[in-house]
Amino acid sequence: MSNPTAAMLVIGDEILSGRTRDSNTNYLAKALTDVGIDLKEARVVSDDQSAIVAAVKALSDAYDHVFTSGGIGPTHDDITADAIGAAFGAHVGVRDDARALLQAHYDRAGTTLNEARLRMARIPDGAALIDNPVSTAPGFTIKNVNVMAGVPSVFEAMVASVISKLAHGAPLLSENWRIMRGEGDVAAPLAQIAADHPDLSLGSYPFQKDGAYGTNIVIRGTDQTRVAAAMAQLQALFPA
Amino acid sequence: MSNPTAAMLVIGDEILSGRTRDSNTNYLAKALTDVGIDLKEARVVSDDQSAIVAAVKALSDAYDHVFTSGGIGPTHDDITADAIGAAFGAHVGVRDDARALLQAHYDRAGTTLNEARLRMARIPDGAALIDNPVSTAPGFTIKNVNVMAGVPSVFEAMVASVISKLAHGAPLLSENWRIMRGEGDVAAPLAQIAADHPDLSLGSYPFQKDGAYGTNIVIRGTDQTRVAAAMAQLQALFPA
Repeated sequence: MSNPTAAMLVIGDEILSGRTRDSNTNYLAKALTDVGIDLKEARVVSDDQSAIVAAVKALSDAYDHVFTSGGIGPTHDDITADAIGAAFGAHVGVRDDARALLQAHYDRAGTTLNEARLRMARIPDGAALIDNPVSTAPGFTIKNVNVMAGVPSVFEAMVASVISKLAHGAPLLSENWRIMRGEGDVAAPLAQIAADHPDLSLGSYPFQKDGAYGTNIVIRGTDQTRVAAAMAQLQALFPA
Repeated sequence: MSNPTAAMLVIGDEILSGRTRDSNTNYLAKALTDVGIDLKEARVVSDDQSAIVAAVKALSDAYDHVFTSGGIGPTHDDITADAIGAAFGAHVGVRDDARALLQAHYDRAGTTLNEARLRMARIPDGAALIDNPVSTAPGFTIKNVNVMAGVPSVFEAMVASVISKLAHGAPLLSENWRIMRGEGDVAAPLAQIAADHPDLSLGSYPFQKDGAYGTNIVIRGTDQTRVAAAMAQLQALFPA
């Protein structure tokens, strides 16, 4: 049986302008690999409703799970909840359960739950809230789409909470072998090993160090015995 | 007149498994911002021909320029040239001009241009080569798609060469203002400034430092006078 599939959607002008470097995709990729969910695609779109709607629909149709980051704060450019509502034809309004969370949080902090902050309680009808242990304002899950914050510490906490509830596949195992030869010298034997092990993924990552060429070979698969067999074949050809 | 638009396509299993953190999108984003080309979307797909073909077609149709990174090396999982050829119905084979570049390079290095290395001379018919000053194996441009290496140093050199030949728009100017208030306190006045300046993009990026909440406001636009006017309005509301 093959693993569940997933896609990541990063929402935010600041990524596409280069101001901010997205770290959430890499975090999610590692977290999903650990639990046997295959991240198949990632996209970045701007704070533009039609772009968000189109991407959410395409990814929700194509993959088992979708994870989004960004655009759920209190400011005018935080339009993710409305875009997700539009994508699924769900009404979006301030929800009592989300408002109660925020009210308690701001009461504790002695801060007013003003109109802007109340925007963070706007949740599409039918969505389930995602807990935010860092700063309270919740994410939400609607259909197969998990909508989370862009701030990395909050995103990471939300991912942990969401992933624990999903059906897991077989974790992807990965072994690395470092060869002090150029990729062009490794390519032919590597292709043969790959052909012998169609159930594994063999990646080749060249590097240069102190003027010498080298190649890291990564063998990935879900069956430890098969990964070890391919690694033994590789190591016999290119001993340490 | 609006700026030309662009999309990035990152190709590689290693990004989606979390092994490697993509840095090429951020580099491209900054380089395009500097010359007034608007990066509108980025995608990451795996080393899978149908995934690459679908993404290339979609992005090539939707944007003025497409930039890809990854999958043009000598190994079995380097399938980008073939996928691009398939996307555009172009034959892909070893091209004499690309072979001559590689032959000269490996002759100088005293290395054999073997069958695997010769794969890097496989270029779709009708494509123009992109110079690789780092490691010789060229990228290529076909229609509006610029196909480049995944290794960051090579990608960056290729981007510089490609961008210098493209029509430029008005560079995006960006000014930052740091406010030691939570986003929820800044949101309403910020929305008003944004409404007063529909030609500008106002972004709000919360942070926490030493237990205090703060917000960075970034005002972006192509007209210096307008950016300065909005910044003055913001600074009057939230003095240093």
